[in-house]
Amino acid sequence: MMQQPKMNEKIIILGGDGFCGWPTSLGLSQAGYDVTIIDNLSRRKIDIELECTSLTPIQPINKRLARWKEVSGKSIDFINIDVAQEYEFLLKTIKEIKPKAIVHFAEQRAAPYSMKSSKHKQYTVNNNVASTNNILCAIVDSELDIHLVHLGTMGVYGYGTAGLAIPEGYLPVKVGDNENETEIDILYPANPGSIYHMTKTLDALTFFFYNKNDAIRITDLHQGIVWGTNTEETRQHEDLINRFDYDGDYGTVLNRFLMQSAIGHPLTVHGTGGQTRAFIHIQDTVNCIKLAIKNPPKLGDKVKIFNQATESHTLKTLAKMIADMTGAEIRYYKNPRKEDEENELIFKNENFLALGLNPITLETGLLNEVIDIAKKYQYLCDTSKIPCASMWGTGNEFDAVGSINPVSNQ
Amino acid sequence: MMQQPKMNEKIIILGGDGFCGWPTSLGLSQAGYDVTIIDNLSRRKIDIELECTSLTPIQPINKRLARWKEVSGKSIDFINIDVAQEYEFLLKTIKEIKPKAIVHFAEQRAAPYSMKSSKHKQYTVNNNVASTNNILCAIVDSELDIHLVHLGTMGVYGYGTAGLAIPEGYLPVKVGDNENETEIDILYPANPGSIYHMTKTLDALTFFFYNKNDAIRITDLHQGIVWGTNTEETRQHEDLINRFDYDGDYGTVLNRFLMQSAIGHPLTVHGTGGQTRAFIHIQDTVNCIKLAIKNPPKLGDKVKIFNQATESHTLKTLAKMIADMTGAEIRYYKNPRKEDEENELIFKNENFLALGLNPITLETGLLNEVIDIAKKYQYLCDTSKIPCASMWGTGNEFDAVGSINPVSNQ
Repeated sequence: MMQQPKMNEKIIILGGDGFCGWPTSLGLSQAGYDVTIIDNLSRRKIDIELECTSLTPIQPINKRLARWKEVSGKSIDFINIDVAQEYEFLLKTIKEIKPKAIVHFAEQRAAPYSMKSSKHKQYTVNNNVASTNNILCAIVDSELDIHLVHLGTMGVYGYGTAGLAIPEGYLPVKVGDNENETEIDILYPANPGSIYHMTKTLDALTFFFYNKNDAIRITDLHQGIVWGTNTEETRQHEDLINRFDYDGDYGTVLNRFLMQSAIGHPLTVHGTGGQTRAFIHIQDTVNCIKLAIKNPPKLGDKVKIFNQATESHTLKTLAKMIADMTGAEIRYYKNPRKEDEENELIFKNENFLALGLNPITLETGLLNEVIDIAKKYQYLCDTSKIPCASMWGTGNEFDAVGSINPVSNQ
Repeated sequence: MMQQPKMNEKIIILGGDGFCGWPTSLGLSQAGYDVTIIDNLSRRKIDIELECTSLTPIQPINKRLARWKEVSGKSIDFINIDVAQEYEFLLKTIKEIKPKAIVHFAEQRAAPYSMKSSKHKQYTVNNNVASTNNILCAIVDSELDIHLVHLGTMGVYGYGTAGLAIPEGYLPVKVGDNENETEIDILYPANPGSIYHMTKTLDALTFFFYNKNDAIRITDLHQGIVWGTNTEETRQHEDLINRFDYDGDYGTVLNRFLMQSAIGHPLTVHGTGGQTRAFIHIQDTVNCIKLAIKNPPKLGDKVKIFNQATESHTLKTLAKMIADMTGAEIRYYKNPRKEDEENELIFKNENFLALGLNPITLETGLLNEVIDIAKKYQYLCDTSKIPCASMWGTGNEFDAVGSINPVSNQ
């Protein structure tokens, strides 16, 4: 069992109303921390822009929090601050709360959304870079010893170096000629695949600088693609339900497949499906963040980087697994991303395993839970939002290029 | 002799009113290019904030341009655009002008200024990151094939790897164990020493992404510390004179020493003076940018990176050289920067030498030219602005820690 936090240990969750932020806030509250959510509700506003909503009927933040209080007896505060824009308000709040740790989810987090247009590229870059820099400035200005836990992405690595497992953040390399060869540990060379991913590589350099110059304790979590919807806490009442994105911008691939199969829509594979991705269940996101908070870097240590992912699969394998479960058809579309048709992805995640993480994998009944949720709320689905409408460059078209009915083609 | 550009080859200079931008604009105009300056005059506004001015009496931009027209017979257009804030105006202008190349100086460029306070950190990060991203978005949106030439800094490298010459942008490294070792070419691992330098490392990743995703032709120039004031063109009339910064924020070290000696102020060395820096004369800045424009990367090539510096010296050596010339006293102050007391700095600059650059070095009479300018305008000097007032962290004080009179101490 996890050790209980000391009485009144305070945590601020930036972006605590979002897909990862909400279940993390409840998970930390349940574990005994005194949680404050800071959020500008930008993700809900983007729903309005995209004319799309969470498949699950998420409640307004204050209704969510009132229900949590009723269900658990625990209070979570909410303050509406735009972290990228309202620095003085952010700083004042941090000085008042004096948190032990700040968890930073306050970034635009969808690669397709970040590539929709120049306006979306600019919003993603300006918002994400300013958020991260403002938080670090505020920690310095507060003169408090605060541990910053940031949600990054496995996407900073690009697609890895053939044959080598992706290490956790740092890569040992040899430089120089044979007579004068030295080994140095460098930040893994960044190879972002979208503007969104690029902002996370900019974050990594920003952390590197503030850690070196101001000795801020920082943990950067390079997360895989999250699947699942509910956690132990969000399951406790329908008003606590987590968001479920199924649209082409925010929906992540496994949840999209599960939802498509639930409503009888073909599974939409972009490209050959040979792309390999890393995955993690939303409950493990929460568990990992608890572990990161419990195990801060020592003062003076360099930035601690964890790979927050538990397994990897090709998109084709996932589609076939779900087609086999449900009889769904698989349909192949041109890939809007500029990436290799096939890639290996081997990564290390020993840091979290060493801290006691017991990964939830695809083999469990949780795939069915997602399908059940998708079925239950399918009346809220707008199927026109399912295709991805973003392009990584000009000259791609979005026609289906083939389809496979798993029943007839096995 | 340099080949003449084709009739009507158009160049946009972003930040063309600044210390490097102004002589570059005149140099390209003189060479036959049709030059448009885009600038929001932010550097002049920062003078107002800092209650300091250029030592040289620089004229308003339109007076400068009218004088240039009179002296040379050539026109340069000026458009006041904030590149970080006015995207649609920037895009419209690029589409109308259809430049062959855009030279990008549109960033806050002083390390001490970037470290003054959180407000200055935020301005530097938000302005520099948004400028670079907006320019790249605009090149993509324009659907024109435009070569972007960016002024970076040798500071992205940090202080190098002991014993190895700093390569031009890319570092070959070996990864993996002996059986499975592969050599890859990576962006030189970034090690920025200030928020300003950090923004240039963020630029490098931004260039990497847009070059990969959108095949933009990009040349990134990692420049040393610039010294000197005038160039062939700015010497032609006093109204064309370039700015001369001597203050603790914007003044660069060699120009500060020369100016201090001219007015009988002790030379202000921060730290032991064992820090080694790379240098380049302002005339060579202009010559290098001409060469970069003449030699764009081929379509599809990766980002071309040049080290734009011609020699390196320790601060102590420079101070002694000038003390010996002028009899000035050397005074040592605590170093506001967090850096090693002593460092080696060996770098390659073969790319520009191969293109025909004939470096101007400290041995020439140009040191005296700077001293003459400093003497001529010393009546405009506010000596209270000479010390550096920025701190890289808390706990430093800015007292003098010792002084050496070169005459009595040799």
